[in-house]
Amino acid sequence: MAQSKPSPETRTEKLAQWAANLQYHDLPEEVIQRTKELFIDWLGCTIAGRHHPAVAAIVRFATQMGPSSGKSELIDGSQGLTSSPAFASLINGASSHVVEQDDLHNRSIMHPFITACVVGYEVGCRTGEYLGKSHYEKFHSTATGGVIGVAAAVARLLHIDANQMLSAIGTAGTQAAGLWQFLHDATHSKQAHTGKACFDGILAAYSARDGLLGPRDIIEGSRGMGAALAPGETDPEAINKGLGLDYAVLGSSFKWHASCRHTHPSVDALLALMAKHQVTFHEIASVMARTYQAAINVLGLTGRGETVHQSKFSMGFVLAVAAKNGQAMITDFTEEALEDAELREFQQRVTMELDPEIDAKFPKQWQGTVVVVCKDGRKYTESVEYLKGDPENSLTRAELETKFRALATYGGVTDTTKVANLLQKGWELECQSSLHGFSF
Amino acid sequence: MAQSKPSPETRTEKLAQWAANLQYHDLPEEVIQRTKELFIDWLGCTIAGRHHPAVAAIVRFATQMGPSSGKSELIDGSQGLTSSPAFASLINGASSHVVEQDDLHNRSIMHPFITACVVGYEVGCRTGEYLGKSHYEKFHSTATGGVIGVAAAVARLLHIDANQMLSAIGTAGTQAAGLWQFLHDATHSKQAHTGKACFDGILAAYSARDGLLGPRDIIEGSRGMGAALAPGETDPEAINKGLGLDYAVLGSSFKWHASCRHTHPSVDALLALMAKHQVTFHEIASVMARTYQAAINVLGLTGRGETVHQSKFSMGFVLAVAAKNGQAMITDFTEEALEDAELREFQQRVTMELDPEIDAKFPKQWQGTVVVVCKDGRKYTESVEYLKGDPENSLTRAELETKFRALATYGGVTDTTKVANLLQKGWELECQSSLHGFSF
Repeated sequence: MAQSKPSPETRTEKLAQWAANLQYHDLPEEVIQRTKELFIDWLGCTIAGRHHPAVAAIVRFATQMGPSSGKSELIDGSQGLTSSPAFASLINGASSHVVEQDDLHNRSIMHPFITACVVGYEVGCRTGEYLGKSHYEKFHSTATGGVIGVAAAVARLLHIDANQMLSAIGTAGTQAAGLWQFLHDATHSKQAHTGKACFDGILAAYSARDGLLGPRDIIEGSRGMGAALAPGETDPEAINKGLGLDYAVLGSSFKWHASCRHTHPSVDALLALMAKHQVTFHEIASVMARTYQAAINVLGLTGRGETVHQSKFSMGFVLAVAAKNGQAMITDFTEEALEDAELREFQQRVTMELDPEIDAKFPKQWQGTVVVVCKDGRKYTESVEYLKGDPENSLTRAELETKFRALATYGGVTDTTKVANLLQKGWELECQSSLHGFSF
Repeated sequence: MAQSKPSPETRTEKLAQWAANLQYHDLPEEVIQRTKELFIDWLGCTIAGRHHPAVAAIVRFATQMGPSSGKSELIDGSQGLTSSPAFASLINGASSHVVEQDDLHNRSIMHPFITACVVGYEVGCRTGEYLGKSHYEKFHSTATGGVIGVAAAVARLLHIDANQMLSAIGTAGTQAAGLWQFLHDATHSKQAHTGKACFDGILAAYSARDGLLGPRDIIEGSRGMGAALAPGETDPEAINKGLGLDYAVLGSSFKWHASCRHTHPSVDALLALMAKHQVTFHEIASVMARTYQAAINVLGLTGRGETVHQSKFSMGFVLAVAAKNGQAMITDFTEEALEDAELREFQQRVTMELDPEIDAKFPKQWQGTVVVVCKDGRKYTESVEYLKGDPENSLTRAELETKFRALATYGGVTDTTKVANLLQKGWELECQSSLHGFSF
């Protein structure tokens, strides 16, 4: 049965039709500007992560299995390597997810076309929002929503029609995978997930163009993603609501702290509390972080935090770092910090508690409340409604540049002229004809 | 935290240790012989499927994204193409799953080493058995168990240790994907699933060797495959029970009919009934196929069967073909058959009904019972306990060769000398030093 051109009957068909037809001139100026900010932020994260062993292993896979050159640049090393888009995205997508400074879906196919990026964010984030909390309990939704977003973005770049877009989304969705099991032993799946989401999304888009038919209702169908991957309630309205009006890129957040994002509400609340009441690190007897269930699920798994990576998932350790250093930047999480007896001692005095009110607002709002008891008996409570980096409290361009420079330094890029040039190219993204020249 | 060498504490660790250490001389002779039979059967299926549009789309992806040559042969066309193992497996794995003549897990990495094949079957099939019926309701377990099997087989070929084997299994499991949604609209995911299971398993094995750490308890962990992908009961004992004694290759079945395997119990029962009571196609007023729930779930989705592929998933159409032609071979499912009014009319008179006793035995036993009412009022019931092709009723080597020749003919290979040579090479598989020369 040949597929007929869809008159958008299902929510997914409507989404695919929108994604296939979005034009650059449809985009509000703030959407274009935010997309550039996200691109620069992604680039910094990718540079910072490029030396991670998981990335190295994936690079080696690409070297053995992929072509030895191609039209896409790898950001993995200093050799100016190139590969095919699928392998470049596998590596760059993995590298971007190493340092825990990125927190959005699909940023891995940042081709010149801002329109495609916007499509990718929209389709990926809407799928993630549809799948909801019960999905996120077991699945790494950056990967499962991400593969759909990548497929849609790449499909848009390939100028395929709405029917093929629907196939791309379908083939992406049936590949959706990525489990949180790696949190239990600090293994490397997180980077594999994002790299694979990129690769698989590209496969879905290219093969859809070349005739591979994907299921037409992969998101909501009775054996689709919602049915199989989300045991609890889904949010069907999220698939289409405000399409072309509420842009996911504008609802996205930047990470300011270098730790798992679920620690950020508490870090911001703690830093605000310490500033407001002039409490110092050594004065604190205990911290209770009141938070939402998903945070407890993710952060409760890593135990004491034996590795640098794990330590960013330990609420106790992250709050200890923030309290002691006044910040939790990428340079604050080091092997030395893991051995710091003061941090380890403070960590023991941090507890987490589920706050039903905060939980009810999540993930629309990432609220944090901390209760601090001082050694002299003082007791304070502080809440933050919007994190630094949230859409309501976004980073300035100067702050984004500061973060970019820190990430580049961490990634071993010390040539400040090169860094300045990269930033300049990024801010002029809409004027570029290709993305060549963003590698090292 | 560096991973230490595992003393096998979990079931998955024990499985990984076994898989890493299995030696050829450990294998009973019947295991070796059966593995060769499975290889030949797989090869025939792969040749037969090579012209499918889904395979063509995946070949095009490999041509654009993969290397233009390599040490592995593609069975997709007549041009003697080669590629890297990952892309060859992507294509060959997809091609092998086109014609519905294969029914086991992982047959896609049939490298020279029979030992690795045995490991792959064992690990993949045990994972599938662990995941059980509730998993199979939404997930295509050939893909989700398959990726684990491929990873283990390839890891064995790479001679990596038990710890790396565990990583390979972990990285494979976190990539496990494949939804039945495609059954609703006859789209191409089935082939994409098996091809991707091969590719992803190879990625898992190679990257494990090169340092990518995979989760250590991906099968049973609290955010692992069982927890996330099997809402119902799992079978933990299946992971280790009889390891090295009960071989999955010996418990595997060959397909004799060209239709979805869930129709086979009913086809065998119907053909037995017609022979026993000398009932002809035109005498039959109605057929009731009593079967297990999983068959009803899968077969109930494709409706009337508008395409050749869909028609193999329609119980009514398949039984009509079997009753009319006395067989349901690959040459019986054609565009002409779809237009055959007699078949379509007979199809209407077939119903399915859940049989709780049969359901309780599934999937250990694929029992079929049919109740036939004749136009003259006669009524017969017939059951088969073991299908033709089941381990208890396996195909002879002559039958396997007959099937192979039919598949090769279907795949456009008309050179009978070449076919004979391929069979000869297959039967001498344990004497080959490589698998070169199995392509066309």
